[in-house]
Amino acid sequence: MALGLARLGSKLNLDNINPRLLKAQYAMRGRLVLRAEELQKQLKAGKTLPFKSIISCNLGNPHAVGQKALTYPSQVLSLLVNSQLLNPENLEVIKKIYPSDVIERAQRYLKGIPGGIGAYTGTKGLQMIRDEVAQFLEKRDGFEANTDNIFLTAGASQGVAFWLNTILRSPYDTLLVPRPQYPLYAATITLNGASYTSYDLDEPTGWSVQLRDIQRAYNQAESEGKRVRGLTLINPGNPTGQVLDRKNMEELVMFCHEHSIVLMADEVYQANYYNPDRPFISFKKVIGEMGPKYKNGVELVSFHSCSKGFLGECGKRGGFFEAVNIDEAVMNQVYKMGSINLCSNVIGQVLVGLMVNPPKPGEPSYEVYKKEQTAQLKSLASKAKKLVDAFNKLDGFSCQQAAGAMYAYPSINIPPKAVAAAKEAHMAPDEFYCANLLEQTGVVVVPGAGVGQKDGTYHFRTTFLPSETEIDDMVSRIKVFHKDFVQRFK
Amino acid sequence: MALGLARLGSKLNLDNINPRLLKAQYAMRGRLVLRAEELQKQLKAGKTLPFKSIISCNLGNPHAVGQKALTYPSQVLSLLVNSQLLNPENLEVIKKIYPSDVIERAQRYLKGIPGGIGAYTGTKGLQMIRDEVAQFLEKRDGFEANTDNIFLTAGASQGVAFWLNTILRSPYDTLLVPRPQYPLYAATITLNGASYTSYDLDEPTGWSVQLRDIQRAYNQAESEGKRVRGLTLINPGNPTGQVLDRKNMEELVMFCHEHSIVLMADEVYQANYYNPDRPFISFKKVIGEMGPKYKNGVELVSFHSCSKGFLGECGKRGGFFEAVNIDEAVMNQVYKMGSINLCSNVIGQVLVGLMVNPPKPGEPSYEVYKKEQTAQLKSLASKAKKLVDAFNKLDGFSCQQAAGAMYAYPSINIPPKAVAAAKEAHMAPDEFYCANLLEQTGVVVVPGAGVGQKDGTYHFRTTFLPSETEIDDMVSRIKVFHKDFVQRFK
Repeated sequence: MALGLARLGSKLNLDNINPRLLKAQYAMRGRLVLRAEELQKQLKAGKTLPFKSIISCNLGNPHAVGQKALTYPSQVLSLLVNSQLLNPENLEVIKKIYPSDVIERAQRYLKGIPGGIGAYTGTKGLQMIRDEVAQFLEKRDGFEANTDNIFLTAGASQGVAFWLNTILRSPYDTLLVPRPQYPLYAATITLNGASYTSYDLDEPTGWSVQLRDIQRAYNQAESEGKRVRGLTLINPGNPTGQVLDRKNMEELVMFCHEHSIVLMADEVYQANYYNPDRPFISFKKVIGEMGPKYKNGVELVSFHSCSKGFLGECGKRGGFFEAVNIDEAVMNQVYKMGSINLCSNVIGQVLVGLMVNPPKPGEPSYEVYKKEQTAQLKSLASKAKKLVDAFNKLDGFSCQQAAGAMYAYPSINIPPKAVAAAKEAHMAPDEFYCANLLEQTGVVVVPGAGVGQKDGTYHFRTTFLPSETEIDDMVSRIKVFHKDFVQRFK
Repeated sequence: MALGLARLGSKLNLDNINPRLLKAQYAMRGRLVLRAEELQKQLKAGKTLPFKSIISCNLGNPHAVGQKALTYPSQVLSLLVNSQLLNPENLEVIKKIYPSDVIERAQRYLKGIPGGIGAYTGTKGLQMIRDEVAQFLEKRDGFEANTDNIFLTAGASQGVAFWLNTILRSPYDTLLVPRPQYPLYAATITLNGASYTSYDLDEPTGWSVQLRDIQRAYNQAESEGKRVRGLTLINPGNPTGQVLDRKNMEELVMFCHEHSIVLMADEVYQANYYNPDRPFISFKKVIGEMGPKYKNGVELVSFHSCSKGFLGECGKRGGFFEAVNIDEAVMNQVYKMGSINLCSNVIGQVLVGLMVNPPKPGEPSYEVYKKEQTAQLKSLASKAKKLVDAFNKLDGFSCQQAAGAMYAYPSINIPPKAVAAAKEAHMAPDEFYCANLLEQTGVVVVPGAGVGQKDGTYHFRTTFLPSETEIDDMVSRIKVFHKDFVQRFK
């Protein structure tokens, strides 16, 4: 080889890239998932493994495990994606397939999107869709919603990132986040060089949020010299499925007000509650009903998404946030941050409109829509109960009922010898457990270590999204595995 | 009002949010654009203004100013968005409207996307689409492309952010970026607390990239105690429209190799070059042809997008990057960063596939596709020339030919008295000029101050995307305005 100029410095490697990235963790797609992908390929190639199929329960990704897209939004979107279908010569043909309200909705949308869905929208997203969101919020909460403070985002994740990057300045600023948590929060904060402080959810009371635990986390942050800037509440809970009650919510609102911290309400599972006695109530509504001091005083950002609920449209990356009582100059800064990436994808934006403003009784698409929606939510409720009940029948398992969301978070007994074996393998005990579960059964779940838990307890997060048959299959695989695991490490 | 608990701390305001956000600037959607939106509303409400319409030339957003979506990709996407159209009972109807290759393409895609487009994909995006990208790159460059190193992203912007956040660690790490630049770079870097160092493009030689200017920027960074981690080259250039020649590219590659810095090639305008004697050549190809030392030694990341070229599909947010010669452990960290946001929207992903693998000669959709593509590129070339020629006829204007991309970046003479008036208005001289231009003519462009320029020179960036008639209209508005402006501040 020719002798070139001596190279200065060295190539990119783990010692010279951003250390915040190295530190960030995101368990939903960690090494277990990569391993599951390998195993899937091996199965496809005909290799003999201890199981015949992979059952993916690591991600709240309903369509990937069989849920179908709802008919009405798919129809409207198809007309927007190819607006030539609305030209006179095609329209006659399309009318044979699509109900009239679908065509009217698409025509109305196209009229309001002069460049069509192929143009960047304004940073906040289409005005027309944000108006629909405002109407939805007003109906949901009984209080005015200001379109100017509603931003359409790529899923809820993008909105969360905007706000974390706005309110947290340095490692000395911290956000109170639940433990267990959806790790988007920890990962985004770590990547941006700020910090978070965990408050424990109370497992025996169905993972409730106790003010004393919030207060404890606050005091801990203060004693570490950190400034608490916000409180994240995931309601309904991920990964724990709890749904907050009003009294509890009021306490939390008062806490935020007293300490002048932003209440970040992750309400993406607002359509997913399964106990009629414990319905979802939005923080906007609760705060509004607490009187002017709170209604006009609490800084609130609420996040929502098309990925969850009964749509389950993860791949379209539609979502929004509403910001309440935030200083206008600060809103302008959030606007600037959004502008750097121009806008979220327009199909996702329109899907938000279709989600918040579905067909109404009497309209041609209403019956089918209602039927699909009801079937979806009923199935989720039934599978939630079935899975949790099955877990509670397993020796060494204990699982709180999931009152909402899409996940169960069972506590599992891991024998001391297995804990020792995990240590030797440089794994957390429940990561070790889940890795063994995957290798022996093909079931993919997320170890408690990846989403957080009280020291000395072990859990995993599983969705209850697969079909009822698959859930039966999964439970029987876990049952055999667990017995064998306990036996091995007795 | 009731006396509540005393509030600790204060609400969010400009003094207590992330100062990096305050510092970040993104001129494409700065205050001029917000003002233009206001004026648009006033026009709509019937208010009399000195002009009858807003002409938006601030953003490379082709569909917003009249470009139509191409037929073939729109047709395929519509079938994916509502896959029920492929059910036997609908298919007969659809066959009356869509050519057979459209239906086959959609069927093939759906077979490869088990959950449909409503499911999250893997972090890197659909394998099937990344395979199509790899084939496209192999054909374009004549070298192997590894699917594992291709990530589908939400436009090119998301990919750029991934890499900036990976390679830059602190304010003491810096990226060499062109001046003028597309401000995504400066804004993202500032937001993440790192730094950038500008190298000047050489206006008299058509905004060429001179090695001496790169070396000068490198030395400056070193003398400030900063570590240069990468070099960004935008080719074809934004906002300057230059297209690099091979010899120049080779010098730049050698520079990156010598200094062990990452070459970040922003190649989103690769389909937009208008001078047949100066076609776009990719850095991958150039590096590959420079022999093994460079082919296997230069760390390269190349970005591409569906938003530009002849598709102009900004609203779909499709894009990708290919990383070459990057350490596998570092790639895994970039993967982790991508995982935090799960995946880019799937329609954007599929559009990438349709962009890189269009209909082939002989296929039913080929003729229409080719015709639409050619018309689009021909129109851009013609408008580029028309606009630049018109600018060069104006007194006090001087404008380099745009050999590529979608922008002209004329240099303008601003009289000393206008510079003084700008100072009084707390504006940069060309921002003052552009603000006056907007108020008096309705033409929206981006001041040179927002994208960078040599001290003492003044420019603005304008797209040449509006129709030929509108461009004529715009030029005559500017002509009258400029004369008047010079007169006023004589």
